[in-house]
Parts: sequence; structure tokens; C-alpha cells
Amino acid sequence: MRLARVAHSDGVSFVALEPDPSAPQEKVLAIEIDQHPFGDPTFTGRKWPMADVRLLAPILPSKVVCVGKNYADHAKEMGGEAPANPVIFMKPSTSVTSPNAPIKLPPNSERVDYEGELAAVIGQPCKDVPEARGLDVVLGYTIANDVTARDQQQADGQWTRAKGYDTFCPLGPWIDTSVDPADLGLRTELDGELKQQSRTSLMLHDVAGLVSWVSRIMTLLPGDVILTGTPAGVGPVKSGQSVSVSIDGLGTLTNPVQ
Amino acid sequence: MRLARVAHSDGVSFVALEPDPSAPQEKVLAIEIDQHPFGDPTFTGRKWPMADVRLLAPILPSKVVCVGKNYADHAKEMGGEAPANPVIFMKPSTSVTSPNAPIKLPPNSERVDYEGELAAVIGQPCKDVPEARGLDVVLGYTIANDVTARDQQQADGQWTRAKGYDTFCPLGPWIDTSVDPADLGLRTELDGELKQQSRTSLMLHDVAGLVSWVSRIMTLLPGDVILTGTPAGVGPVKSGQSVSVSIDGLGTLTNPVQ
Repeated sequence: MRLARVAHSDGVSFVALEPDPSAPQEKVLAIEIDQHPFGDPTFTGRKWPMADVRLLAPILPSKVVCVGKNYADHAKEMGGEAPANPVIFMKPSTSVTSPNAPIKLPPNSERVDYEGELAAVIGQPCKDVPEARGLDVVLGYTIANDVTARDQQQADGQWTRAKGYDTFCPLGPWIDTSVDPADLGLRTELDGELKQQSRTSLMLHDVAGLVSWVSRIMTLLPGDVILTGTPAGVGPVKSGQSVSVSIDGLGTLTNPVQ
Repeated sequence: MRLARVAHSDGVSFVALEPDPSAPQEKVLAIEIDQHPFGDPTFTGRKWPMADVRLLAPILPSKVVCVGKNYADHAKEMGGEAPANPVIFMKPSTSVTSPNAPIKLPPNSERVDYEGELAAVIGQPCKDVPEARGLDVVLGYTIANDVTARDQQQADGQWTRAKGYDTFCPLGPWIDTSVDPADLGLRTELDGELKQQSRTSLMLHDVAGLVSWVSRIMTLLPGDVILTGTPAGVGPVKSGQSVSVSIDGLGTLTNPVQ
């Protein structure tokens, strides 16, 4: 199932997108889910053509946990070795923004970078999840852009400011509950120019391992999002540009820069 | 007003503590607040003697934003200079725990430290707050213990794992909405032995400056908590010990270590 969160004429709802949103846009319907998409979602009976809704970030997480240097080529381009264990950091929930919503450049940074990433959305409260069961607690997958004020990241040492600005965590366009995260192609384009191209099979720590690692530190709650790291090719964005992250089976997350 | 969150025989409620909780315990009543304590709280009419309730963390924040090295003597004991600008990091909301609840030592850390701190609780949604108005958006103040797995902090570089374990953010015992944060004495005791003793006037960046700084990065929401940094004297805790952080006018936050 593909789960989304949409604005419609009557408010905001979680929806299922049917049939497959790769079908022609005019055939896809947003089917309203009662309350929230966790567990066995039920439906209200309301539905809208996609033309009548606007896609929002598919979830509002209680926390966004990110992993640094989880692709060897990105660790290398950042001038370091990848650490043996995953190094985690957080983005505040207020940094989450929607597909097609502008990434707003802060006034005090000289360099803001895109970082295309696969994101896992947690489906159930969990703690100390064994690695073999890491994927069982995932509701599904979506795309994230771990937008980073690179100069502030380097100045601070801690990455929270550089990665914590409002609009610095675009998520979407939807959550796919059936995709296998093991070997998906990932591409980031800036104004149509290919900048990042990799596969999730090149992650140093796979999704199951990351979920297990994070859950051994903190309880994960339904809707929490784990960003799985970015491959090589990160680079700056400028106002007026548009950045698109595409992942096989998950569509494309596009955001203008403002 | 002193605001608390309590468990009682009928569930969990926000309450006001009246009269002043420094009065003899048997005279203090927990007066139930309708819904939440933001804005102008109204009261339901229910009340309990303190003996009949259990104090919980006074707020469940959407985010906990912390400031590193905000006292010169602590920056020095950590082997560095204090940075010119505040360096921020986050603790996950799942790390918050209640007064008297155990701090649980993770199995894979050799050294877990207490860090007593003044905490500011945000009262209204805000962004880009001028420093001169920094205190206006604060609902009130409480005490925090920024518990830290020191070995993991040093190993990771990023501090999220070291400071993010469940139970690593005791908060309480209540929120005082009238205390002036400018020059409060702060003391941390481990099994009754004085370990930290300082004054909030020794902060390098004061509360108004910190609120302003953080709000220029991220939108702050009602209930969000800003931890203002710890003074010198941090040190390890062991299972079976008890750590108490006291701040003038705010009482004492005590937690056993397990």
C-alpha cells in the first residue's frame, strides 16, 4: 500500500493512493484513512482525485533520527573514514516539510547542501529490536532530503544547528509499505542535472541494522523516521533552484529552494 | 504558579500546586488543570493532597534542545574552550523521565555522568524571537539532568547516542512560572555529597539569549524544553546511587540510578 497525507478542501487526512500512483495521474484516487495509518487502517469512504489534493509530508514524526556517513564514498568525500558503528544525530520534528514546499535558506549560512536519502518510517512502539527483526517494525519507506548548512556543520562540530532549520527535512511523496529496501537505486538531481547516484545495497549498515541500533538506544514510536544516510555527490543549492531525490519504487521528492 | 503533571488514582493530569510547595507537604494540594497549562489555564474543580499523587515529568516536550559548554568552568574541565556561539544538540523526547524514576544505565557504557541544569519550558509557538523578548515566550522553569554516557560521547563525536538513552533526561519536579532565571544557585549531590555548585549568572549565554538563538534555527512549540548547560563538577554515577539537582526556587530533582 502507498500511504500519504494530503490537504483537501475539507482539511488534512491520511490516505491510501490507489491504484498504484505510477498509473496515469488522472486515474489515481486518494482514499481517506480513518484517523491514522498504523495497525490495520480502516477507511472512511471519502476519496478524492489526485488533482483535488495536495501531498504533505506523509508523516509528522515524534523524532527524526539520522545516520552519518553510511556510504563509504560519502564518508570519503567528507574527508574521513566511515566509523565502525553507526553515528546518529537528530533533526527536530519542526524541520519536516512537504513535497514541493520550498527549502528556505537561512540568512546566516554561505553553503546549504542537499543530501538525498532513503527514510524508514517506524510502525509500532519498539525497543531493543534484534537485527533479524529490524524490518518487522518498519511501516514503510519514503524519501528524505537531509538538507545541511555545511559551513555551520563544520563550525559547530555538533550537527543539530546545521541540519535543524525549519524546512531542512523534506519528506515524501508517500510511504510505500511493500518495497524491499535492500537494493534500490537512488538519484538526486539539481535543476535536472544528476548529482547523486547510488544504490541502497551500498549502505555500510543496512536498514535492519540501523533500526536495531537506534532501538537499542531509544524507544521508537509509530511515525518516527530513520534517515539512512546519503551517498557521495552532495553539493550546494542556490535560491531559485529545484532539487529532486528519486528512489526506485518510491517516486520522486522535489523541492524548490528559496 | 507552580505547574506539575501528576499520576493519580484516576489517570494523569496537569495540576497547579497550591499553596507554595515549600509549605508543609501535608498542606499542599494538586489542583487539576483542564487539558493543558498553556495560555490561561482553567481548573476542573478536582484536587488531591500531594500524598495521593505521584509527580511525573512536568511536560512531555515535542523536542528537547540542549546547549553545550555554557559555563566556562565546565568547558575547561571537558578540555576545551567555550565556543563563541552556543552549540546546540538534542535529546529525544523518549529520554524524558520523571522525578524519582530510575536512570537506567545502558549495558554498553563504562561511564555515565550526571549533569545538573536549569531548563526553560517554552509557552507559545515562536520563531526568530529577539533576545530582548527571549523570556516572554518561556512558560516557566524546571530542573533537568542531562545524563550522558561519557565514553560514547567521546567515541561518537556526535552526542545524540550518548545523551539519548531512555531515562537520560529527568525533568522536574515542577515548572515555576514566576522565578527569575538570572542568578539562581544550582547544586548537584550524589548520595548527599556535593558535586556541582554554581549560579545561573555564570552562564556564558543567558536564557533569553539561548531562547533567541534556538528560535532563529527552529520553530519552538509549547512544551519544548531548552536545557541551558551544566557547570563544572560532572562525574560518574553507579547503580544504587541517587543523584539530586537543586536550583533555588525550583526545588530538587532526585533520581536513583539503576
